[in-house]
Amino acid sequence: MKLKVINPNTTASMTAKIGAVARAAAAPGTEIIACNPARGPVAIEGHYDEALCVPGVLAEVLKGEQEGVAGYAIACFGDPGLLAAREIARGPVLGIAEAAMRAASFLATGFSVVTTLSRTRIIAEHLVQAYGLERTCRHIRTTDLAVLDLEQSGTQARQVILQECQRALTEDGSGAIVLGCAGMADLATDLSQTLEVPVIDGVGAAVKFLEALVGLGLQTSKRGDLAPPLRIFAPKHPSV
Amino acid sequence: MKLKVINPNTTASMTAKIGAVARAAAAPGTEIIACNPARGPVAIEGHYDEALCVPGVLAEVLKGEQEGVAGYAIACFGDPGLLAAREIARGPVLGIAEAAMRAASFLATGFSVVTTLSRTRIIAEHLVQAYGLERTCRHIRTTDLAVLDLEQSGTQARQVILQECQRALTEDGSGAIVLGCAGMADLATDLSQTLEVPVIDGVGAAVKFLEALVGLGLQTSKRGDLAPPLRIFAPKHPSV
Amino acid sequence: MKLKVINPNTTASMTAKIGAVARAAAAPGTEIIACNPARGPVAIEGHYDEALCVPGVLAEVLKGEQEGVAGYAIACFGDPGLLAAREIARGPVLGIAEAAMRAASFLATGFSVVTTLSRTRIIAEHLVQAYGLERTCRHIRTTDLAVLDLEQSGTQARQVILQECQRALTEDGSGAIVLGCAGMADLATDLSQTLEVPVIDGVGAAVKFLEALVGLGLQTSKRGDLAPPLRIFAPKHPSV
Amino acid sequence: MKLKVINPNTTASMTAKIGAVARAAAAPGTEIIACNPARGPVAIEGHYDEALCVPGVLAEVLKGEQEGVAGYAIACFGDPGLLAAREIARGPVLGIAEAAMRAASFLATGFSVVTTLSRTRIIAEHLVQAYGLERTCRHIRTTDLAVLDLEQSGTQARQVILQECQRALTEDGSGAIVLGCAGMADLATDLSQTLEVPVIDGVGAAVKFLEALVGLGLQTSKRGDLAPPLRIFAPKHPSV
Amino acid sequence: MKLKVINPNTTASMTAKIGAVARAAAAPGTEIIACNPARGPVAIEGHYDEALCVPGVLAEVLKGEQEGVAGYAIACFGDPGLLAAREIARGPVLGIAEAAMRAASFLATGFSVVTTLSRTRIIAEHLVQAYGLERTCRHIRTTDLAVLDLEQSGTQARQVILQECQRALTEDGSGAIVLGCAGMADLATDLSQTLEVPVIDGVGAAVKFLEALVGLGLQTSKRGDLAPPLRIFAPKHPSV
Amino acid sequence: MKLKVINPNTTASMTAKIGAVARAAAAPGTEIIACNPARGPVAIEGHYDEALCVPGVLAEVLKGEQEGVAGYAIACFGDPGLLAAREIARGPVLGIAEAAMRAASFLATGFSVVTTLSRTRIIAEHLVQAYGLERTCRHIRTTDLAVLDLEQSGTQARQVILQECQRALTEDGSGAIVLGCAGMADLATDLSQTLEVPVIDGVGAAVKFLEALVGLGLQTSKRGDLAPPLRIFAPKHPSV
Repeated sequence: MKLKVINPNTTASMTAKIGAVARAAAAPGTEIIACNPARGPVAIEGHYDEALCVPGVLAEVLKGEQEGVAGYAIACFGDPGLLAAREIARGPVLGIAEAAMRAASFLATGFSVVTTLSRTRIIAEHLVQAYGLERTCRHIRTTDLAVLDLEQSGTQARQVILQECQRALTEDGSGAIVLGCAGMADLATDLSQTLEVPVIDGVGAAVKFLEALVGLGLQTSKRGDLAPPLRIFAPKHPSV
Repeated sequence: MKLKVINPNTTASMTAKIGAVARAAAAPGTEIIACNPARGPVAIEGHYDEALCVPGVLAEVLKGEQEGVAGYAIACFGDPGLLAAREIARGPVLGIAEAAMRAASFLATGFSVVTTLSRTRIIAEHLVQAYGLERTCRHIRTTDLAVLDLEQSGTQARQVILQECQRALTEDGSGAIVLGCAGMADLATDLSQTLEVPVIDGVGAAVKFLEALVGLGLQTSKRGDLAPPLRIFAPKHPSV
Repeated sequence: MKLKVINPNTTASMTAKIGAVARAAAAPGTEIIACNPARGPVAIEGHYDEALCVPGVLAEVLKGEQEGVAGYAIACFGDPGLLAAREIARGPVLGIAEAAMRAASFLATGFSVVTTLSRTRIIAEHLVQAYGLERTCRHIRTTDLAVLDLEQSGTQARQVILQECQRALTEDGSGAIVLGCAGMADLATDLSQTLEVPVIDGVGAAVKFLEALVGLGLQTSKRGDLAPPLRIFAPKHPSV
Repeated sequence: MKLKVINPNTTASMTAKIGAVARAAAAPGTEIIACNPARGPVAIEGHYDEALCVPGVLAEVLKGEQEGVAGYAIACFGDPGLLAAREIARGPVLGIAEAAMRAASFLATGFSVVTTLSRTRIIAEHLVQAYGLERTCRHIRTTDLAVLDLEQSGTQARQVILQECQRALTEDGSGAIVLGCAGMADLATDLSQTLEVPVIDGVGAAVKFLEALVGLGLQTSKRGDLAPPLRIFAPKHPSV
Repeated sequence: MKLKVINPNTTASMTAKIGAVARAAAAPGTEIIACNPARGPVAIEGHYDEALCVPGVLAEVLKGEQEGVAGYAIACFGDPGLLAAREIARGPVLGIAEAAMRAASFLATGFSVVTTLSRTRIIAEHLVQAYGLERTCRHIRTTDLAVLDLEQSGTQARQVILQECQRALTEDGSGAIVLGCAGMADLATDLSQTLEVPVIDGVGAAVKFLEALVGLGLQTSKRGDLAPPLRIFAPKHPSV
Repeated sequence: MKLKVINPNTTASMTAKIGAVARAAAAPGTEIIACNPARGPVAIEGHYDEALCVPGVLAEVLKGEQEGVAGYAIACFGDPGLLAAREIARGPVLGIAEAAMRAASFLATGFSVVTTLSRTRIIAEHLVQAYGLERTCRHIRTTDLAVLDLEQSGTQARQVILQECQRALTEDGSGAIVLGCAGMADLATDLSQTLEVPVIDGVGAAVKFLEALVGLGLQTSKRGDLAPPLRIFAPKHPSV
């Protein structure tokens, strides 16, 4: 099956990293298409960035429908454009925040999110509420790391994240950690071993849950709330 | 004070109607700028439409900041782009759903929403949850009317809406009605008199609440969650 | 339009201060009647005080209905007698806690309340729950200040409140402050400038929102839950 | 032990009925004082009535503290003045709505309330929310019966209530019924036998729970939220 | 009336202590049967222990139905098997967590739980949610005490619990304490006097509330959700 | 990988059906062990049945830990023993209700459950609340079918279920259906095609989600709430 993993920002190195993590998680028969919009914000660090990346994400989904894509992952922790994408995709569409948080709730009674700048906390907080996870998500912990800091000399970023994870375990009493940025996707396995609790990256989780849903023959419901748009407005530039 | 009322869709007749209602509500010293994006969906009837109209809405806000606009109303009942607009505006930004529903909660212990096609109910439902109004909003009632039906020979549309309002009073036990589409803005006063309960249109409510907030010298908070974007990504075409 | 601002306690200096703030906020055509019951508690600092001030508040509303009052503000942060007053008033009735907290939610995704003695925290907490603002109100911060302390040599009280506001910004991550006592009404503008975030006083907010609602021609719903009392029990002394 | 059962309205026949039910429920060593304020509304059928009866209720509690009363029941389904009474009473104070609804939640996973006029439904609804019983209370059912109708030729009132109880069982799937007015207190046992489910009257429930709490040596907490008033404002007439 | 107090673990000294506390609380005419399953976990300190003790608890209830028992208390703070027991008992069945927390909510606007090992906190947390007490329970405080530590040289355990109670009052602002383990039942009166707030033990509370419900002639609802099992599966050994 | 699918009741034909559905869903490399306790209730149709089946379920998990099982599905819609099983299993443990409802929330904004006898509705209702899905689950629909009815001449049962699904689509406005009993597992694909919406069986969903979690190297958290029992109480008979 063909799965498309869409990095909503335009930073190619991040798309490459996300693609690698997705491929490492994928089952033998799964083909991963990793992509990002041609134009748009270089990083998603607020509501404005989120709003501006969505048309590019949707353009990638529309293209995917032509390419026979069986399912989509939106690889930004704010899950931007999720319900809009579900209106135009036949197969399932998962956001990585949703996938990671639901994976955590299968493995622990409480989890903490460790994410980037404190200015994005509110986005995660609103998702936690929308997904009905207010009792399971014990804390959203932010760091001083911007999204693009994660694309550089990783060592120090990893250290900052590790420390915040440790605080999550001792101060929040959480049993699992959700990494709150697609740019952290490559750290999950290593942190999991160091901390001896599940540390969950949403890119891998989304790929595996998509394989699960597609494997069951399940598609996005087209009845009612997520019915196809009455008319498809096509922006001039597929990426914006 | 200058207030900008943004119709997120590109249907000029609707912008004109919204502008007229806004001007009728405005205080003597208030100048209303009514506008809509140059390109985008002709009506907002689902998540995809909503996502695609937002860049145009935000472009109008960015332009407004150059024009000395003191406050903004987003004149579509889904309040599309609200938090993103708040990141880039100095003055207050109100969505018409938010304004109408909060006005209703000042006047009655329970209200019903009467809106357009049933496919958009989920958008109103998610707003009710996000705004903490699940106990006050007793029912979201949909009709067979598409947004653009409201731009035509009004008589029959008015009749359908009136009947649904009457059902809201008798079946939901509601004490007030919120009209769930900017295209219904011109019906509020008339329905209010017929039904003898407050019937609230969000365009007027948003204009008056903006005047109130601006009059108090209050602006959108720029600390934390709604801080200005780290970088402004400017789409090629101001309207998309 | 005539608006009546009712101070539920019997401390005349506080009524004067509230009246001044209300007049400063009011639009040119608005006449403010500031009053307080002739008998009752000198300050409202608990449930008992609240219960005992309500008959006096209601007597003022009944009188206002004879005087052609278009809307009422109840100027005590516990919003005492709000629903009872709505049963007997034609026009809108707003509590200052309600008005301030809803204003804050138009301007920020999270706010803190800074109020008086810790013994009154529970009253604010119950209002936050009743108004559906549990997710938006991040903290209710109390001080050692009694209501009547605010009527004296203001300097030190202002300092205590300022410090608590600063803690709200750094510790709660709030983007706005709601002042939790009518006795603080005169501090809002000054604190707003010092702190560079919206600091909201409910007296001003209630006056402007009343002007907005009355300006839209909206009145309190008389259908169902807020229908006029079946019989008006008139206490012997209009003020108790 | 001395327990005081306060009927908040001034209808003596209802006080007598409530006293009889309380005495029938009481244990051998319990002395029941049934009383009502000398002045106030004759029936509590809305927020205004509620507000006006509270000073009289509180005067009875103050008097009770002189008389060595060990606990108080407020015998009106809106539990008027409950927290204010707890500030001035040493012993426990229970409202009959609270007592009846908590009794029901000990005996069934879901209950319905059957009460008087539909205009009072909102009061019961707000109590259900405040007491955290939104999941357990499945429906609040109203009838055309005013409070004072229950003081007359009972037969027809009983029939109306019985039918509404039957609907509660079949339509709401409830396992227990809570009678939503002190004036129905004498019907509980008979309806319980007819319907073969627990039908709970709050007067009896409050008396027995008071005996339980007093028997355990437990009193109302005087620390923090319910600390005694800073000063006791004494209304001129003890009953208002 | 005969009341059965079931200690779900197999530690006889704890059953004896629970029985003594129950008898001290009981009214003159009440006979207390204190018992524990013959086989099962020696202490309930997690979900596994809870699951394994339930068949023994239910066997005791089945036996009690033969013995003319009028009501049951399940004397473990996790209330294990509560709804299952209600399916097979005619009379009321109360868990001690439920009884203690509801007693606390009659006496204070907020309470804290002080319990044993931190690994059992999640069980109390889930009960608080299930019972609708998330707003009233301000904190669940754990200690380093295992259940069986409470059966030994009490002095030090008492000291640890006292300190945690004091923290609850100063840090949580709670007005009452709920003791979170049947093994603490004998400490309530003494701590109550030392701390001058209600300190509530669930064993005594359950006994008194059972007396109250039985005294009112109320039994567990047998309609719908708690109807008797379609068939009674009898485990080979009554105690497992 | 070895996955164990545990039917908590002792009806072998149901175990066989569940095993077949699990194998049909499993990926090539997955080995399915389908089993049921040797002793216990023949069907789980209430809280008592649930409580009595759990020791047998846990015995199967303990055995599985010896057999190198990588993950477990508890194949009864009440998810009996879920948290207890997570304390003793290294790998992930999923209940079929949890798995099916979370799958539905990936594919639709609202779903309905179609289940067996109305007496089990309360169990599903409590799960919906515990899993934070109160906004997504629009209705729990019951039928007159007992669990064992599904083991017989399927035709009529399928018809009853189909009709209830159709009502869910038209009356509840749901976009997906969750089948509320493991005994319906074989109907999902067929109903999905007939109704043209996702119809989700939890057995298949649990198997695929287990494959996903195990594939990501994720195990049940052993820190805090789900730490292994302090001591393992071994019932005499592995199946009880």
